[in-house]
Amino acid sequence: MVPNPDWVKQLKPSGPQGHELLDAERAKSDIPVKKLQELLLTKDTIERRNRILDILKSEPVFDKSSNYFNGRVERFERALAREKKLQLLRRKHNWDIDELRTASEAVGEPGPYALHESMFKITIGEQGTPEQQEKFLKPATDYKIIGCYAQTELGHGSNVRGLETTAIWNPDDKTFTLHSPHLTASKWWIGSLGRTANHACVMAQLYINGKSFGPHPFIVQVRDMKTHEPLENIHVGDIGPKFGYNTMDNGFLLFNNVKVPHFNMLGRFSRIDPQTNKYVRQGSPSLIYGTLTWVRSNIVMQAGSTLARGVTIATRYCAVRRQFQDRDAPQGEQGENPVLNYTMVQIRLLPLIAATFALHFTGKGMMSLYEENQKRMKQEGANRQSDKRGAGPEETEAGSDILADLHATSCGLKALSSTIAGEGLEVCRRACGGHGYSSFSGIGSWYADYLPTLTWEGDNYMLTQQVARYLLKSARSVLSGAKPSNDTTRILSNFRSRSEVGCAFDILGSDEDLVSAYAWRASFLTFEALKHRDDLKKPWNDLLVDFYRLSKAHSQYLVVKNFFEALKHGEIASKVDTTTQEVLWKLFRLWALHTLEQEGSEFFASGAASRHQISLARTNAVMKLLKEIRPHAVRLVDGWGFDDWVLDSSLGRYDGKVYEDMFYRASELNPLNGVTVDPYPENETLFKKVEPLAKAKL
Amino acid sequence: MVPNPDWVKQLKPSGPQGHELLDAERAKSDIPVKKLQELLLTKDTIERRNRILDILKSEPVFDKSSNYFNGRVERFERALAREKKLQLLRRKHNWDIDELRTASEAVGEPGPYALHESMFKITIGEQGTPEQQEKFLKPATDYKIIGCYAQTELGHGSNVRGLETTAIWNPDDKTFTLHSPHLTASKWWIGSLGRTANHACVMAQLYINGKSFGPHPFIVQVRDMKTHEPLENIHVGDIGPKFGYNTMDNGFLLFNNVKVPHFNMLGRFSRIDPQTNKYVRQGSPSLIYGTLTWVRSNIVMQAGSTLARGVTIATRYCAVRRQFQDRDAPQGEQGENPVLNYTMVQIRLLPLIAATFALHFTGKGMMSLYEENQKRMKQEGANRQSDKRGAGPEETEAGSDILADLHATSCGLKALSSTIAGEGLEVCRRACGGHGYSSFSGIGSWYADYLPTLTWEGDNYMLTQQVARYLLKSARSVLSGAKPSNDTTRILSNFRSRSEVGCAFDILGSDEDLVSAYAWRASFLTFEALKHRDDLKKPWNDLLVDFYRLSKAHSQYLVVKNFFEALKHGEIASKVDTTTQEVLWKLFRLWALHTLEQEGSEFFASGAASRHQISLARTNAVMKLLKEIRPHAVRLVDGWGFDDWVLDSSLGRYDGKVYEDMFYRASELNPLNGVTVDPYPENETLFKKVEPLAKAKL
Repeated sequence: MVPNPDWVKQLKPSGPQGHELLDAERAKSDIPVKKLQELLLTKDTIERRNRILDILKSEPVFDKSSNYFNGRVERFERALAREKKLQLLRRKHNWDIDELRTASEAVGEPGPYALHESMFKITIGEQGTPEQQEKFLKPATDYKIIGCYAQTELGHGSNVRGLETTAIWNPDDKTFTLHSPHLTASKWWIGSLGRTANHACVMAQLYINGKSFGPHPFIVQVRDMKTHEPLENIHVGDIGPKFGYNTMDNGFLLFNNVKVPHFNMLGRFSRIDPQTNKYVRQGSPSLIYGTLTWVRSNIVMQAGSTLARGVTIATRYCAVRRQFQDRDAPQGEQGENPVLNYTMVQIRLLPLIAATFALHFTGKGMMSLYEENQKRMKQEGANRQSDKRGAGPEETEAGSDILADLHATSCGLKALSSTIAGEGLEVCRRACGGHGYSSFSGIGSWYADYLPTLTWEGDNYMLTQQVARYLLKSARSVLSGAKPSNDTTRILSNFRSRSEVGCAFDILGSDEDLVSAYAWRASFLTFEALKHRDDLKKPWNDLLVDFYRLSKAHSQYLVVKNFFEALKHGEIASKVDTTTQEVLWKLFRLWALHTLEQEGSEFFASGAASRHQISLARTNAVMKLLKEIRPHAVRLVDGWGFDDWVLDSSLGRYDGKVYEDMFYRASELNPLNGVTVDPYPENETLFKKVEPLAKAKL
Repeated sequence: MVPNPDWVKQLKPSGPQGHELLDAERAKSDIPVKKLQELLLTKDTIERRNRILDILKSEPVFDKSSNYFNGRVERFERALAREKKLQLLRRKHNWDIDELRTASEAVGEPGPYALHESMFKITIGEQGTPEQQEKFLKPATDYKIIGCYAQTELGHGSNVRGLETTAIWNPDDKTFTLHSPHLTASKWWIGSLGRTANHACVMAQLYINGKSFGPHPFIVQVRDMKTHEPLENIHVGDIGPKFGYNTMDNGFLLFNNVKVPHFNMLGRFSRIDPQTNKYVRQGSPSLIYGTLTWVRSNIVMQAGSTLARGVTIATRYCAVRRQFQDRDAPQGEQGENPVLNYTMVQIRLLPLIAATFALHFTGKGMMSLYEENQKRMKQEGANRQSDKRGAGPEETEAGSDILADLHATSCGLKALSSTIAGEGLEVCRRACGGHGYSSFSGIGSWYADYLPTLTWEGDNYMLTQQVARYLLKSARSVLSGAKPSNDTTRILSNFRSRSEVGCAFDILGSDEDLVSAYAWRASFLTFEALKHRDDLKKPWNDLLVDFYRLSKAHSQYLVVKNFFEALKHGEIASKVDTTTQEVLWKLFRLWALHTLEQEGSEFFASGAASRHQISLARTNAVMKLLKEIRPHAVRLVDGWGFDDWVLDSSLGRYDGKVYEDMFYRASELNPLNGVTVDPYPENETLFKKVEPLAKAKL
């Protein structure tokens, strides 16, 4: 805003420069970063990302330099402009959906088209008849129709059956009347609806002749295709600013007896026969449960890379930031210590580096299991279609045990992984000390935008009940003598079979045993919970806290197991050298032992580990692993391959020019510095002088 | 922005209305809210607050309705206008400092005058000579001089000795030259400096004849008194947007060889004799260490009320928000369940209600100890003045053991209490489900503004080293046979004296024993750490994680002890009825047992509690306490007496009109709804139509 005077331009940071410090860090480790990147991202993805990054960087609309300074309306306006440009680029370069997603991720903000691309089009694709797909999907793909998915209401979140919006069938003119009987019936939080969409896929309670048939999806036009004004008897708008996600226009929507044609109820699985006015079910919507499972698996997968962004920033900055001398340092050693050398910083950051890999490999494992199972499901689904209507995953039979397992698994892992990522980002921000609080750290806004993930696609607390319900059911089946049909029943059976001999796991000496200790503790908690529910007949509500712990324990087992499997049996050996493999094994141990120590009481109570082992894990093994992993820290985060343009962080710069970048953004980009105030209370004038750029921000 | 149509205006939330639900909650408990408010806040404070609230509400500048919508520059502008008005009101109503603080708290945002009022004026008052106070303090009180406290630098936070800004004494013209030799020397994060201040109290390294004398305070004019433009060779500005605190202009400041007269080095404790050019120490600055201790005690005190704000919002909303039916509910009981009935919500919120009281009483206890000790210190200080120069609190002798104890205590408690409050606010926000993410929840911005407290006045992680150092020193003194001289050495001696008999605490049956168990565990960890440091000669750096745990354990003991003492020996019995007292005792037990269970491993390892006791605490005692406290939840948070205008929260309204308020703010106040977009990618236009109010936001 105000150019720096010449004497300021000549100033440099004191002591060793950031790039020297990071060069020194990178020299300490011989992990081949490029190979590690290829392992995590694959060569194809890296090529695609680089190609797309080049395009984005050359388009002025994607310039990020004013992002941290803009207010809500401005941010939304800019986000809409970027969304439009992405669509034009998509057409120009003939991008497929993966390429479009890569571009959106690089832009790094929720865009106003997001729910159109994901939920609106996918729902029509999955639940629409061929005729409906023809009518709605084609214009949606061309961005004539721009849609959203309107389920949540002001008064109803997780409980879909409690939705208040009604869709009443009119036998006379063969239409539905959509209506919002109460204020709490207002659709709320609907992404892309606030200002952008002209259509919505609305979930409403279907009534035929006074009888309720539960929530069904209806395609409803909400705004005029030309003027973009709301249609009559429709009240629609943006729900206002949020903790994050402010580039998105989450919306509200109320209906005052709005008529919708018969055609507009998505009819692949159920429809109304307009002749008989009867409700007709057809086909099995069980594949749709699969979609939610897929969405959750995706969240697990992304939790790793989401967290990796914060970890990259914090690790690099903690290698550049120096503070105090080591109390025990010899007299001769001058200068302040990079804070990454302090064990109190290491114990916060290095387990999170480990977590990025643990979550990544867990997500990968989940996705393969999901894809494998989808194939099988499609096969079985076709066979079963006629006789098993509307069965949820819990109600299918033995043959689909994998699906039920995957469903419960995905719920618990979604909750655990998004909590680890969300809370981990805040740990990263605080590890950056005071500067972590600056917007230029790049962590705060990322954290704020990520937080909804802990609530949507199943609230992280709510989901744990589903996991517990599934585990109790599995335990009952084991008790009844049924044969193990998936991993969960296998570990429960094993635990049960050893009820009179107990266990002895060499958690510090054997990686297999470490995984088994996690399985043991999860099984122990499952049978404990079962005893409380089935034998002691405790009320469900009194057990919610136990269920939460149980779900967490089981999900932690899955993460440890998946990480172990990936290292033991995965393609890793063929893809990276032995140094990298050794460091990855250390990360596995750090994650498993650090988590075990934090949950020490449960491991001890279950008998999976002794007090001495837990104490050794903390004072000995974890501290030793921190020391051993420390030299590789910067190269490990380099392995995630974030481009500086994507990170948009002063603290996380690849070249370590932290202070130069902070200073540049503060002094030269900051519109507030274009304002000269009148600071004296008796003068009414607030701003005596406003430079043009600052004026634009008012 | 766009008025709601008539059919919308007639809509009400479904089911029982918010005010009915909260009325029912309040009917369940017979805690006399007014008495509880008087206990927490005192009658005088309530009277003062109400009087001042009436004044603020009648002034349009304090209207909060656009706060959540404004961008950075706008928020700062509005905040400056409010600060000015507060000063005018102060003059008009002749407010004292307590009245001004009450008004600032009610406004509820960091204001651009804040550091002038606190650090600038206080530093001159404490460290200035009578002549300096005359010259600087009087115009500062009249807001002719507006100042700030410039210590932290871009490259230096906690380590004051590492500051790079220099002040070189010029014997020829009897001036100092202030200079920033590097970019990292730039003052940074300096509150009120970015745009507002015309003076700064600058901490700089004093050099006389090439010899360093460490950091000293200098009063430096930085902007012209008329034009408010920066003076020559001074580069000053705002550091840019932050995660929160955006109504404040945190600033940067660089000097290019700026001369400052001899008079301007604050000279109460040290000065340069202009005749001899020698450095002269005079008096003892140990009272200044007291100031930092006072600031920290204040943070502990405020942590309770800060958290109470979030807890009030979440508790009220969870009583209004209903979701799902109870799985075990009898067939006849219709309707959804208020989420506050779910134990998984209770276990998150009720211990935080307990924490608000625990922190409040701990803060109160600290403040009295501090004030008592200040009196003693002043007495002792006067006696010692001539022979003990510049001694920090750790270096004073036996007679000042209380000061050393209070200093360490305040460090540990500052870290623990601000962490509890900061993280607790986020727990409250998430307990509100999806709507917690809306700015209208009122928690997010409050949390974001509070977060710096975890970093400033000593980073919460850094501080734990000071606590540990003190505890080790105390343990050494106990081992050497010294008599206990304060509470810390008393508990350590007691632990030591029982090293061969151990302990047996009836943690579930006796409140005294519960406190003793906390003392025992903290003592155990202290001697463990001492063994590692003194006997095993472990490097300091290897012990930082242990020190962190030790500090936490000791501070948790202090909170539990202070809460206990307040209930047992405090004035409570005379101020509230037995029902309230009983509920407060239950909150004490909930807090102590819930924390004990979370830290179970340490209690078990130290022998302070058995595995059976810890398990009973969780499955039995805590769950029972949740049930017993549940009916009082709403009245307990009412006891904090927050005015709706202060909370500025849709979810936390006293009358429970949650949904009406959310809808009103979203639809009628939200500037984004004044914008009609062109959503089609091929059209360059982004906003086709912009209503005037929205235009003002662009």
